[in-house]
Amino acid sequence: MGLMAETTSASAPHLTDQRLVKGARSRASIARHAADVASVEGLNGVSIGRLATDLGISKSGIATLFGSKEALQLAAVHAARDVFVEQIITPSLREPRGVTRLRALVDRWFDHITEPAFPGGCFRSAALIEFDSRPGPVRDALAADHDEWLTFLATEIRKAQGLGELPSGDADALAFELDAVVSAANLARQLGADAKVATARSIADRLLGRSEG
Amino acid sequence: MGLMAETTSASAPHLTDQRLVKGARSRASIARHAADVASVEGLNGVSIGRLATDLGISKSGIATLFGSKEALQLAAVHAARDVFVEQIITPSLREPRGVTRLRALVDRWFDHITEPAFPGGCFRSAALIEFDSRPGPVRDALAADHDEWLTFLATEIRKAQGLGELPSGDADALAFELDAVVSAANLARQLGADAKVATARSIADRLLGRSEG
Repeated sequence: MGLMAETTSASAPHLTDQRLVKGARSRASIARHAADVASVEGLNGVSIGRLATDLGISKSGIATLFGSKEALQLAAVHAARDVFVEQIITPSLREPRGVTRLRALVDRWFDHITEPAFPGGCFRSAALIEFDSRPGPVRDALAADHDEWLTFLATEIRKAQGLGELPSGDADALAFELDAVVSAANLARQLGADAKVATARSIADRLLGRSEG
Repeated sequence: MGLMAETTSASAPHLTDQRLVKGARSRASIARHAADVASVEGLNGVSIGRLATDLGISKSGIATLFGSKEALQLAAVHAARDVFVEQIITPSLREPRGVTRLRALVDRWFDHITEPAFPGGCFRSAALIEFDSRPGPVRDALAADHDEWLTFLATEIRKAQGLGELPSGDADALAFELDAVVSAANLARQLGADAKVATARSIADRLLGRSEG
């Protein structure tokens, strides 16, 4: 017992760290797969059993990491948000503020739809509609993520207006309209109507003061 | 056997008619309930078992009328389409062609969102996103219904352009943009963000050349 206690006190922190790192890595990759499944079959198709079968992991392993179907769905929402931030927001922030950055954001947003990071297209778009009539933590997380994006977009629009690069006007309304058009493009693309994505791009160009054609 | 044959030939057509009428009526009310369920829980939540429980009908009764879950989902799509035609298109066609009719259509479309005919908001919007990654007859029916609506809207826009009441331009793109904005308003309303519905209405007014405010 003395030896065991010594061994434990000497090596356990290291082992625990490794386990934590490994656990976090598994957690992240399970959450990412959950987001993929949700983009095609809906967040309601995400269950501990389904993920266990897909990934060849035991149900109890996934249950240990997430606890419940709802926690798994929330993890999928956060994983999808991370992908969106990494692919669209972070690289665009390298551009100078104003319409240059706004156009970079919108271009990447369209790329996110035409070459989707998720097999079923835009995760947010699909999940929001799926959960809009189901009050609870998942709907709250999706609505907060959506609001955060619209607020960010409106802030960038205000910067462009402040620089005189866009006409003054309701920045929140313009953010809403851009989001509406890109979401409709996502739906069109998922339905195979690629010509409508081009239509949506020229509407967005017009809204951002870029000459058409 | 002679008498039975006679009785049958005399009264069966009448009985059969009654049965057909009764069957059609049950079919319509079951399909309508299926559309209600789909608007909240998704079309995938529509099953023969679920409908039997909700309506207090035997599963075999529903199975006799519809045959399969997919046929039931298709019937829900058609029932929702009938509601949309009845509430939005038919009354607007009484208005004179041109912007008057277009505005009547868009006003009724917004009313359909703020006082939804379906408990979960716009049926089409929710079902399209749910099925956009699931090829098959249900997705085809939803996409055809959506295309038909956009084509109708573009035709009415062209009439208004022909009358000089709207500036000339891509009528299909304007129909796409209106549909995007109204769909985004539906989502906002379902998430309790009613202020965004007002935003969407003024965007639609601007698109239809109606002065804002």
